[in-house]
Amino acid sequence: MRLDKAVSNLDPKLDTGVVLKNESIFYLTGFFPTAFALLVMGEEPYLAVSEMDALLARDLEMEVRVVKNFKKEISFRGRVGIEKKYTTVGFVEEYLKGCKISDLKLIEEMRMIKDDSEIGKIKSSIEIAEELLGNLSLEGLTEREAAAKISYEISKVAAVAFDPIVASGKNSAVPHHLPSDTKIKSGEPVIVDLGSRYDHYNCDISRTFSEAKSKRFKEIYTAVCEAQKEGIKKMIPGAPVKDCDIAMRSVLREYGYEEYFVHSSGHGIGLEVHEAPRIWRESKDLFKKGMVTTIEPGVYVPGWGGIRIEDVVYVDKRPEILTSFPKLLNT
Amino acid sequence: MRLDKAVSNLDPKLDTGVVLKNESIFYLTGFFPTAFALLVMGEEPYLAVSEMDALLARDLEMEVRVVKNFKKEISFRGRVGIEKKYTTVGFVEEYLKGCKISDLKLIEEMRMIKDDSEIGKIKSSIEIAEELLGNLSLEGLTEREAAAKISYEISKVAAVAFDPIVASGKNSAVPHHLPSDTKIKSGEPVIVDLGSRYDHYNCDISRTFSEAKSKRFKEIYTAVCEAQKEGIKKMIPGAPVKDCDIAMRSVLREYGYEEYFVHSSGHGIGLEVHEAPRIWRESKDLFKKGMVTTIEPGVYVPGWGGIRIEDVVYVDKRPEILTSFPKLLNT
Repeated sequence: MRLDKAVSNLDPKLDTGVVLKNESIFYLTGFFPTAFALLVMGEEPYLAVSEMDALLARDLEMEVRVVKNFKKEISFRGRVGIEKKYTTVGFVEEYLKGCKISDLKLIEEMRMIKDDSEIGKIKSSIEIAEELLGNLSLEGLTEREAAAKISYEISKVAAVAFDPIVASGKNSAVPHHLPSDTKIKSGEPVIVDLGSRYDHYNCDISRTFSEAKSKRFKEIYTAVCEAQKEGIKKMIPGAPVKDCDIAMRSVLREYGYEEYFVHSSGHGIGLEVHEAPRIWRESKDLFKKGMVTTIEPGVYVPGWGGIRIEDVVYVDKRPEILTSFPKLLNT
Repeated sequence: MRLDKAVSNLDPKLDTGVVLKNESIFYLTGFFPTAFALLVMGEEPYLAVSEMDALLARDLEMEVRVVKNFKKEISFRGRVGIEKKYTTVGFVEEYLKGCKISDLKLIEEMRMIKDDSEIGKIKSSIEIAEELLGNLSLEGLTEREAAAKISYEISKVAAVAFDPIVASGKNSAVPHHLPSDTKIKSGEPVIVDLGSRYDHYNCDISRTFSEAKSKRFKEIYTAVCEAQKEGIKKMIPGAPVKDCDIAMRSVLREYGYEEYFVHSSGHGIGLEVHEAPRIWRESKDLFKKGMVTTIEPGVYVPGWGGIRIEDVVYVDKRPEILTSFPKLLNT
């Protein structure tokens, strides 16, 4: 169990480490709580679950406490490590009064580096998503109908990682456009952004389609693909994460589209769709072998539309692009 | 705009109130951010959105600041109100160094009381969910296929409020069972728990079906329905929320099933599927006219299965049950 490793690597100044995020609890114990739960790491680690999860957690090979009232039954003292990014002020005031608080970064650091079994699951989720993309026919559908169809096809074999984005025509100028009743027209760009979750591991892939490829479409598409290629080249162990973002922006600048790239360049993916590291210019992280992130340059021109290409990349001396769905142009 | 009301009701001791939850930002401004955003309330309220939301937020009738780097561009001082339940320690350390922190409860209090337009939207979402339930045929399907079909039908006309639960046979003894490849058998209980979201407002309804109704099934079904009825009677303005939970447990105790009711009795519903108030025995809230909550007694017998009935109720002198999908037995 990864829990042993986490416990033995716990900062010795801590009396306890408390993990609240269900994905992290799953990562460490193999059990995915369906309700509020607490993983307590220290000399005698235990998992506190609600009565709802009693049946599911009963065969775990660690101490499991079934709790009726967390606030009454669980307490801490001394120096406690919490994931500050994910722990609310409310939790601290209710459970950690009188304790000294430290930031517990260990779990996120462990989760950033994927092992072979995790890579296998991410690949399986990608296979599901790409098979769907290959069979997808958008003709005659509204964005909403297309998104519904995508979710349906995914959920017949896996879980839907997130509500798919289907953004056509001018709507594609909005990166997080909510599928509307707009009918998809073949002459206009349409961004499809989808993900499946296989055995708890997510993928996230975007492609932009268009049957009629205008000069502008081709130019932006080429710029986005080139930016992505330059970004991926930076994804080698030891390189600063921010260099990847900077490289992509620099390509788009040459094409005159930098100002239209309005989001970060990517995000770690695994048990969560968005997890560490975030790929952006302010990042202080370094790439490490085994990280898996999306790389998703996009250009969004208000009044015209947008183009986003998103792939999933494994960081290595020669970065490996795990997604392989073909792109539109020979770029 | 509700924002004016919130600003004028802000504790005068506060220099600023900061709202981070996107549902609350939507509630106050009519704009639903698709990425990280901050609503800042004070003498001159403004909404800070990322570049991704610049296009969507441009027509808002309030000051909108488009932000490239929140940490660099946004700062606070003095006494700042935050929703402690929803604000992370990380946020406080990054944005509120040197500030005095107070708990901002106003927004949750406002959101708990639904106005007519909100009730209308909840009713619309219920209509969608109940029409689907009425047309649902589970015959020959696996749990996973049934859940996929439910999501598909919902997403053709609205949004899916949450991944539906379809738990059949012994699986129904797990309240949050994840749909599996188990084939649904007509002689066994099957819990279906689903919700749609219409114009941002959610509903949440559960029914338990079984074609062959054993003596035990009938007894538990009757107990659950009776518990629900007794609980709903307590949902009148001024009554303690906990009395509703206690009343339901007391009925189940008489039938000998109290120990199998392993979750709380319900939760507020609106812009979020789970919001305040939570209906449980430790609640310190009082019911107020205009609150809308689920009421969902359930009995889960390991090795046999479970029965849950969940309806949506509007709190009033005569509480109004907004859901009307028929139950199985004449209870």
